[in-house]
Amino acid sequence: MLPAEYRELFNRNFSFWEHLTEKQKDTLCANTTVASYNKGATLQSGSRGCLGLTLVKSGQLRIYMLSEDGREITLYRLYQGDTCILSASCVLEAITFDVFIDAESDCELLLINSTVFNKLTEENIYVEAFGYKLATERFSDVMWAMQQILFMSFDKRLAIFLVDELSKTGSQDINFTHEQIAKYMGSAREVVTRMLKHFVNEGIVELYRGGIRVTDKKKLKSLI
Amino acid sequence: MLPAEYRELFNRNFSFWEHLTEKQKDTLCANTTVASYNKGATLQSGSRGCLGLTLVKSGQLRIYMLSEDGREITLYRLYQGDTCILSASCVLEAITFDVFIDAESDCELLLINSTVFNKLTEENIYVEAFGYKLATERFSDVMWAMQQILFMSFDKRLAIFLVDELSKTGSQDINFTHEQIAKYMGSAREVVTRMLKHFVNEGIVELYRGGIRVTDKKKLKSLI
Repeated sequence: MLPAEYRELFNRNFSFWEHLTEKQKDTLCANTTVASYNKGATLQSGSRGCLGLTLVKSGQLRIYMLSEDGREITLYRLYQGDTCILSASCVLEAITFDVFIDAESDCELLLINSTVFNKLTEENIYVEAFGYKLATERFSDVMWAMQQILFMSFDKRLAIFLVDELSKTGSQDINFTHEQIAKYMGSAREVVTRMLKHFVNEGIVELYRGGIRVTDKKKLKSLI
Repeated sequence: MLPAEYRELFNRNFSFWEHLTEKQKDTLCANTTVASYNKGATLQSGSRGCLGLTLVKSGQLRIYMLSEDGREITLYRLYQGDTCILSASCVLEAITFDVFIDAESDCELLLINSTVFNKLTEENIYVEAFGYKLATERFSDVMWAMQQILFMSFDKRLAIFLVDELSKTGSQDINFTHEQIAKYMGSAREVVTRMLKHFVNEGIVELYRGGIRVTDKKKLKSLI
């Protein structure tokens, strides 16, 4: 990649970019590498290593926690254009836990090493604010996951709703907007959208404008 | 309280204080109130309201999530000198979840209303960084709680260790430092300390320099 391409990507994805000095911008670019990972590769395992700030150029990452007896709990996934902050958790002192990061597909990542990211965080309050804001977004993701894992109710309710609708129409399509489903279920559109996206990740449905296609009815029914 | 007392407290607890203009400092003080809550009072329930940034002057808060069928999951507690950021979650756009906050004892809080905190966050990057850093600290607390709830292993292991030691000495005291316990258990001191603090919150043990007193052996055994 050319330095100009880095600059373009950073400018688009890092809110702190415009607050860096020219020297800081140069340092950032000079210390960025492109790393490729194959599907299934482990980028970070628990307390071992602190890869650095990573920007997903292509592919999909899964961030999870692991119990001592090997049980995995998926916390969230990251996609093209997302920035992974927990791969730089050693830089942010408020983060005192470790996670595992796997490539769920072949991935290309931009990698800003943690020493450089650390230096920028110390020098520039905008970089620090960016890091902690990102971490807080992931906090929201984890709270969502926790809600699902601990309470397991809305996914069931939505699955029941979708199965009911399928049996009414006899097709694999449900022609409702998220807004309409939310109304029927006495919920909020955001909640419906988020759960449907979760179903997409699980390979249960596909979304299109104005409707939902159920691609794995068996898996959908297994939720009920 | 006198304005000078506010300033003293803010200076001690808010890392952004020194980066405020005099006008911003005045605005902050002028919009701070002291609020008292009785033990058991609910300060915030889910999506209803956004109290503002709160500094615990005395007492103890419990932050928890609630399932649709009324199950409570304690996320963390806050004590004297702690700042509660999730009571100002409406100000930070990266926070997309709601929590419940109860007074676990009679409480006195300094309350900075969310409109003023919002304005400061927009005007001053140090205030924004402070808010998101605090949120990230709470993220770490929640990850710890999640680990306990989902995996439930270290608390059991520590309980077994303590019960074993009690039966060896026949007293209610265990004269080990956290460091020593960590060594015996093949764990880290921080992990032991954190779990012991959890046991203190649960009323199971008391900590003193160089040792642990088990105050509720029955409850300790119930963990095993």
